[in-house]
Amino acid sequence: MLDVHTWEPNANSGKPLFCLHEKGVPFTYHYVDMGAHEHHAPEFLAINPDGTIPAIVHNGFTMTESTPAMEYIDEAFMGPPLRPKDPFRRWQMRVLMRYMDNVVAPSLAMIASNRLAAPRFAGEDPDELRRRLDRIPLPERRASWEQLMFQSTPPTDIAESERRASDAIRRFDGILAHEPWLAGEDFSLADICVFATFYALPLARPQEVNDQARPYLMRWLRACHARPGLQAALRMGKGFISQRAAEVRERLGVAEPAGA
Amino acid sequence: MLDVHTWEPNANSGKPLFCLHEKGVPFTYHYVDMGAHEHHAPEFLAINPDGTIPAIVHNGFTMTESTPAMEYIDEAFMGPPLRPKDPFRRWQMRVLMRYMDNVVAPSLAMIASNRLAAPRFAGEDPDELRRRLDRIPLPERRASWEQLMFQSTPPTDIAESERRASDAIRRFDGILAHEPWLAGEDFSLADICVFATFYALPLARPQEVNDQARPYLMRWLRACHARPGLQAALRMGKGFISQRAAEVRERLGVAEPAGA
Repeated sequence: MLDVHTWEPNANSGKPLFCLHEKGVPFTYHYVDMGAHEHHAPEFLAINPDGTIPAIVHNGFTMTESTPAMEYIDEAFMGPPLRPKDPFRRWQMRVLMRYMDNVVAPSLAMIASNRLAAPRFAGEDPDELRRRLDRIPLPERRASWEQLMFQSTPPTDIAESERRASDAIRRFDGILAHEPWLAGEDFSLADICVFATFYALPLARPQEVNDQARPYLMRWLRACHARPGLQAALRMGKGFISQRAAEVRERLGVAEPAGA
Repeated sequence: MLDVHTWEPNANSGKPLFCLHEKGVPFTYHYVDMGAHEHHAPEFLAINPDGTIPAIVHNGFTMTESTPAMEYIDEAFMGPPLRPKDPFRRWQMRVLMRYMDNVVAPSLAMIASNRLAAPRFAGEDPDELRRRLDRIPLPERRASWEQLMFQSTPPTDIAESERRASDAIRRFDGILAHEPWLAGEDFSLADICVFATFYALPLARPQEVNDQARPYLMRWLRACHARPGLQAALRMGKGFISQRAAEVRERLGVAEPAGA
C-alpha cells in the first residue's frame, strides 16, 4: 500500500523515512543504492522517470520531491501532526524548508560531494563516466554530476557554499535561542527537513558546531537525536549513515535507543 | 490590519494581490516602486530587511516569500478555498509551485529583464550603479542585479532559460490537456502561481503560445483572464501591467470586466 523507494536516511532521501517513523505509519522500504547509480537504472526509472529519490508510491500514485511529499504524508496519514496549527507558524515552517531546500542543503551537498565523492571518480575511465552521465534524465542533475565526476566545480562556487552553510548555522542557532523547535513550540516538518542534513554536523564541522559556538543548535540536535522516531529512521541505513548517527549520539551524550 | 507592500500585480509581487482578490479579503495596498528601487530604500528595509517584495503585514507579523505567503492567506482568511481538499492534489499543487518558483519564473525573469531592463542601464553612470548595488541586502540578488546593470549575463545562461521556459510551456499544456486546472478539478494556488508569470505570454511569446501550438494552455489562460478576482488584481497596477493585461484580454477575446 505504501512503498518508499529511496537511499539512506540522509538529506532528501531520508525525509520520508523520518516523517513516517515520527507518525508511526507502516511502510515498505525499497533501498535504492545511489553509490551504484541505481536511481539512474531502468528499474528505478520505471518508477520515477526523472531518476530522483525519494519516490513514494501510495494508492497507485508516485510522489517525488521530498518536501511536498512530507506535507502529503502529514495530510494523508493518522499519527501525531507534524505541522503547527497556527497559520503564521506554518508560514515560518515553509519558509525555513524553502531556505533549506534551495540554499542550505545544496551548499552542504556541494561541500560534501566535492570532499567525499569527487576524489573517487579521479581514477575512473572517462568514457565510462560519460556513459553514466548519459543515463541521468534531468539536465540540471547531469550538469552537477559532470562537475563532480570531472572535478570541475569552480572553487568560487565551493567558497560561496561554505559561506551559505555557516550563515545558516548561525541563523538557526539564533532562532533556537528563542524557540524550542525551528517553527516554534512544536516539533515540525521544518525540524525534520533541517535534521536530515544537519544530524552529523558536530562531526563534520566540529570547529563551528559545538557547545561553545552554537549552544542552541546543539541543544536542538540533542533533542532531535533523542527522539525515538528519528532514531528508528536512522537505524534503517544499510551502511555508514547509521554508524555515523551512533557516533554523533556518542559525541552529544545522547543515550543509545533500547534494543539497538 | 492587513497591509500588502508590493510592486505591480506581476510575478511574485502579484501573488498576494491575486490570492486576496480571489478570496475577497480586504487589505491595504502599499505600492513599492521597483523601477525606482524603492524596495532597497531605508523605508522599505524597515519593513523587510531582506529588501524583497512582497511583504505582507498581518497581526503585527511580517511575512515574505510569496508562495508560503499564499498558503498563509488561504489558511488565515475566510473565502473560497484555494487549495484542493485531496492530499495528492495538494502534493501536485506544491510540486508545480516549486517548479515555477525555482525553475520557470527565474528563467522568464532572466529573459525579460535582459530584454527590457538591461538596455536601460547602458547609459548610466557606473559609480551610481555601484552605489545602488551596495544597497541590496541579499548577496544572491546583488549578483543578479550586477549582471543586469553591467550586461554581463552569460549568453549560455539566457539560452538555458529559453530552453526551460519552452519546456514549461509544453509541460503545462500537457497537464491542461487532461485537467481543467493545473492541480485538477479546482482552481488553486498553482494556477495563481503560474498565471502571475504567464498572463501575458500570448503577447510575449506569440510564436509559441497560441491556439494552434498550445490549445490547452490557451483555454486555461482564457479561463483565468475571465475570473473577476484575477481581473480585479490586474486592475490594481499603476502602469504598464494593467494596460498589458487589457491587451491580452483583447487578443484572447475575453470580455472586459464590467465598470472597467
